[in-house]
Amino acid sequence: MRGTALKLAAAAGLFAGLTTGALAQQKNVTIGVSIPAATHGWTGGVVYHAQETAKQLEKTYPGLKVVVKTSPDGASQANALDDLTAQKIDALVVLPFNSDELTNPVNEVKKRGTFITVVDRGLKDPSIQDIYVAGNNPEFGRVAGKYFKDNLKQGNVVVFRGIPTVIDEERVTNFEKALEGSGVKVIDKQYANWNRDDAFRVMQDFLAKHPKIDAVWASDDDMALGIMEAIRQGKREDIKFVLGGAGMKDMVKRVMDGDKMIPADVSYPPAMISTAMFVTAGQFFANAPMRGTYVINAELITKDNAKNFYYPDSPF
Amino acid sequence: MRGTALKLAAAAGLFAGLTTGALAQQKNVTIGVSIPAATHGWTGGVVYHAQETAKQLEKTYPGLKVVVKTSPDGASQANALDDLTAQKIDALVVLPFNSDELTNPVNEVKKRGTFITVVDRGLKDPSIQDIYVAGNNPEFGRVAGKYFKDNLKQGNVVVFRGIPTVIDEERVTNFEKALEGSGVKVIDKQYANWNRDDAFRVMQDFLAKHPKIDAVWASDDDMALGIMEAIRQGKREDIKFVLGGAGMKDMVKRVMDGDKMIPADVSYPPAMISTAMFVTAGQFFANAPMRGTYVINAELITKDNAKNFYYPDSPF
Repeated sequence: MRGTALKLAAAAGLFAGLTTGALAQQKNVTIGVSIPAATHGWTGGVVYHAQETAKQLEKTYPGLKVVVKTSPDGASQANALDDLTAQKIDALVVLPFNSDELTNPVNEVKKRGTFITVVDRGLKDPSIQDIYVAGNNPEFGRVAGKYFKDNLKQGNVVVFRGIPTVIDEERVTNFEKALEGSGVKVIDKQYANWNRDDAFRVMQDFLAKHPKIDAVWASDDDMALGIMEAIRQGKREDIKFVLGGAGMKDMVKRVMDGDKMIPADVSYPPAMISTAMFVTAGQFFANAPMRGTYVINAELITKDNAKNFYYPDSPF
Repeated sequence: MRGTALKLAAAAGLFAGLTTGALAQQKNVTIGVSIPAATHGWTGGVVYHAQETAKQLEKTYPGLKVVVKTSPDGASQANALDDLTAQKIDALVVLPFNSDELTNPVNEVKKRGTFITVVDRGLKDPSIQDIYVAGNNPEFGRVAGKYFKDNLKQGNVVVFRGIPTVIDEERVTNFEKALEGSGVKVIDKQYANWNRDDAFRVMQDFLAKHPKIDAVWASDDDMALGIMEAIRQGKREDIKFVLGGAGMKDMVKRVMDGDKMIPADVSYPPAMISTAMFVTAGQFFANAPMRGTYVINAELITKDNAKNFYYPDSPF
């Protein structure tokens, strides 16, 4: 049976030119992918894109098996790494819940000779990773700040921060730097943990404190949804727009549809997990140096290019 | 005939699972690759790897056509871009001869809506590129410096620089920073243009000037060859080793064979052109965000890992 299939495939290859190369260099490789479960919007997108890319890469590279495991917290993720290791993976693509709980477990996987790709949140010891794929957080802040400078030109802005982290610091510092020399003034900023409900409450406070707000840098699409709800309930007409960040499909749809309150967004794509899986496959199938750091651009999403960022089938 | 081929391919796919996906999503894409001709060792490696990867990517992605064009100088490369544009390329992968002559021509290609990947040497306006793939020059210097600190521990070292450029500056600054706190002393440094003959002459000067040299940072494999010849002709026995850089196959072979004068090398792989071509193909076939900056690690090549860096069929 196997012989027949191979002969048929070879015959087809002679005519169609599709399969001969693949058969000639077939190589068995297993890539394990360990990611947070869909506990909130962005990680929901990560799960969706990881699963889609697993299917796609297995089609592209005969001999490649991709095993995706999701975990609800850091401790479970450490256990999931043991399970993946038991399946004799050649490479691990990991988006760690956090650096503290995952650094040692990932290092244990590394010590078995496994190729390691880390995504988004770094480990405490960067020498563990062979590849690092991340968003561009300084640029994320810069692109957003430039949007306010170019489009609001002057006025009062309130700023939402996420969780106190290096990422958050890089974003906010570069946002403020990009505003320099403009008439845009940051009149207040607060942490709201990249969380919709927290952002709702913080926005209610801002509305009570500040009689005149011209625009909001939500800096995150989940937070933007909470902020929009607070503005709606507060019946405030002074706010011209809210700029989020990430590229949630509902927000991208609003941009695409010309919604005045959501005129733009800044990308920080959960599909960077797909980029990481693709370059990790490259380590085995591309015959090219792949060890290094791949920083994915933060891009301004506007009506003109929104369709490139819209994934209607993704949960995020 | 075409009908028969497709039916056979589909039948084979049912058994072997190889072709159905590829047929379902076939997409016609042309990638143009513009690189310097094999005017010296490293660019010879670039040409070899570009051609190998073109074949490989065309096998992996049915519907993909890759056109590789080599040019002997900057002006010819600008013309080559016109030729590629006439072939209606969807993406351009370009390793520019220099920034001055190529920035405007590449920008013209960009204006037609072509996706642009720049490799190694940056353009004067980085906003032209969608992807930038480069070696890690600060790390190249750091890895080399650490090798002297760990292995020579103390002694007199002479340093070869390339051509006065940002790349060269980053390498040398980080080399010297890595030596801090060690007994390794840089007693002389000179430019030798990443050129074998120039390095031969500079090394003759160094030998005449300095009665005691413990080791040489050639910083480049081509220069290392000139330096070795000067040492041989000068019959000097004081020099313990020469550390080059790039990963030229003759040097990697010496490392692999345990040559005492060439105990290690630092990678700066011409195969980064292959990485660039691979991620550019990803823009069309991987459904993942690829726009960004990919910095390839500079790695220490030793007897233990040299086989991973050895390409016997490459001219470099």
